[in-house]
Amino acid sequence: MSARAFFLEKRPIADIDDDVLQLKPLELAPLDDGEVRIENKFLSIDPTNRGWMNAQATYLPPIPLGTPMRAIVAGVVSESRADNVPVGSRVSGIGTFATHSVAKGSSLTPLPDEVSFEHALSLFGHIGLTAYFGLIDVGQAQEGDHVFISGAAGATGSTVGQIAKAMGCKVYGSAGSDEKCAYLRDELGFDGAINYKQYTSAVALTKAVHETCPKGIDVFFDNVGGDILDAALASLRMKARVVVCGGISQYNASKVQGPSNYLALITARARMEGFVVIDYVPRALEAIGAMMPWVAEGKLQARVHVLDGLEAVPDGLRRLFSGDHDGKLMVRL
Amino acid sequence: MSARAFFLEKRPIADIDDDVLQLKPLELAPLDDGEVRIENKFLSIDPTNRGWMNAQATYLPPIPLGTPMRAIVAGVVSESRADNVPVGSRVSGIGTFATHSVAKGSSLTPLPDEVSFEHALSLFGHIGLTAYFGLIDVGQAQEGDHVFISGAAGATGSTVGQIAKAMGCKVYGSAGSDEKCAYLRDELGFDGAINYKQYTSAVALTKAVHETCPKGIDVFFDNVGGDILDAALASLRMKARVVVCGGISQYNASKVQGPSNYLALITARARMEGFVVIDYVPRALEAIGAMMPWVAEGKLQARVHVLDGLEAVPDGLRRLFSGDHDGKLMVRL
Repeated sequence: MSARAFFLEKRPIADIDDDVLQLKPLELAPLDDGEVRIENKFLSIDPTNRGWMNAQATYLPPIPLGTPMRAIVAGVVSESRADNVPVGSRVSGIGTFATHSVAKGSSLTPLPDEVSFEHALSLFGHIGLTAYFGLIDVGQAQEGDHVFISGAAGATGSTVGQIAKAMGCKVYGSAGSDEKCAYLRDELGFDGAINYKQYTSAVALTKAVHETCPKGIDVFFDNVGGDILDAALASLRMKARVVVCGGISQYNASKVQGPSNYLALITARARMEGFVVIDYVPRALEAIGAMMPWVAEGKLQARVHVLDGLEAVPDGLRRLFSGDHDGKLMVRL
Repeated sequence: MSARAFFLEKRPIADIDDDVLQLKPLELAPLDDGEVRIENKFLSIDPTNRGWMNAQATYLPPIPLGTPMRAIVAGVVSESRADNVPVGSRVSGIGTFATHSVAKGSSLTPLPDEVSFEHALSLFGHIGLTAYFGLIDVGQAQEGDHVFISGAAGATGSTVGQIAKAMGCKVYGSAGSDEKCAYLRDELGFDGAINYKQYTSAVALTKAVHETCPKGIDVFFDNVGGDILDAALASLRMKARVVVCGGISQYNASKVQGPSNYLALITARARMEGFVVIDYVPRALEAIGAMMPWVAEGKLQARVHVLDGLEAVPDGLRRLFSGDHDGKLMVRL
């Protein structure tokens, strides 16, 4: 198989148009000291990919135009100049949308044999850590809290919901179809779920959130932004915590819709707080240790949506932003 | 002197039009058990008055139409059915825009003889407590922090700035005229100040904040909202705290401008938090105890803008929202 990669050729203004990423041959340049080459087996499709495409730095530096597009990957080390990461190691970490990635050996997470690549890119990877620490550390969720999750059927949202249920919270969420809402209620045990696409105005959505979660919200875990954030702000309980995990409804917008109900933070003595999962990587074992028993008891499951072949990356990104997927999106090579 | 009051006759949609408040004779009804009548000496003009006029509850219930308008007052008890609050007591608390207020005796703060009414409605009242606890408890300000204050020349803002300077912070702020900025720099010792009215676009304002406070902001104390909030969000340092004290630029807006840069909370791992000063009244002595030495050393001063006569209330409210005042607005009867 010849090496290929998606190169970032243009920065998107709004949607990721066809000319943003281009699939081209990849030259396998010699490694520097400390680096390894990964033969990618799975590529993770994530909302954060969109932010990485911009010219301004996020929590990582911008990607130079004309270079392979950054992505979270899992695979097998095929060449190594790093101590402790021998050829044949199964790893996950930050690589590229390509057949092969180059990374510092020290930046990678070694994967035990019993952890599948699918799990490495979902429950026991950045998704699980995002859900766990976002809910527990940033959101300070406690047993009995009323937790509302936007994008609740997504990879992170569905994990947050299951953890919150396992902790003894009341759990509510929004998603983009009746099928997803049925999945949340019937399969994951949510106490309520609303299909946000059913509401034609922000006022109607606000009313629906209030009716679904009539006692108000202690923790709002937001993956979406826009109208659902405003609706949740209007239902905050005293001392509520709004966890700003993402704003997928706004990533492709040329002008972000700020939360016009933010002054509700005053009335509710509440806070909104952002976080980035890479800060929690040193505490990964704490999260995995807490989640393992829930996985064993069947309280916590990963639903993955696998697309096949490197060529599927643009389709994966499209599905991510349209909501046309069931579970964590990834591409299998 | 015959008793009179401003009655809330209409709820404002945006600005406080002339027919919102009407000055009419006030009947001095008999007191209930536990109540006192205050002969008002000073009436405090505050941004929070605007929120109280709305039909929806804020941190206090809405005011019924056709009743005297709620206000923070200071005065002398002229009639009492409350234990421990004898006739002749000097007090401050929540009353009405009127010659006389009725309040529960237990809700009032007794004023020692050495505290003037002007100080009771500024440094040692709700203004001082708002500034102190907003900066220290909500904002978690530490020596060396870079603190940016919007509405910095206002009653609360100028107090926040002086406390932050006294604590050893770097202090920056925005205000609405060159004169106010000169006051902040020359009289209060701010490290930088910008006249927001000088900038015709949100982009230019964002650039100005960045240039004024080039190392970024650890604590943003926001009294204003709108464009200055977005500009500050774009300059947050890691783990920054945005103290949502108020949003005076938005109180008269029919649709609040939400902060479109709120996703900066993610990149900066930062938080925005609201608070209400009445929660801190039980800790008032802690704030006064900390502020007294600064007052004695001349590091902390109250600047008051006094208007004369009950009829001046509407003019006071107009000045509050136009920025046409120097220091804490109050009306002397």
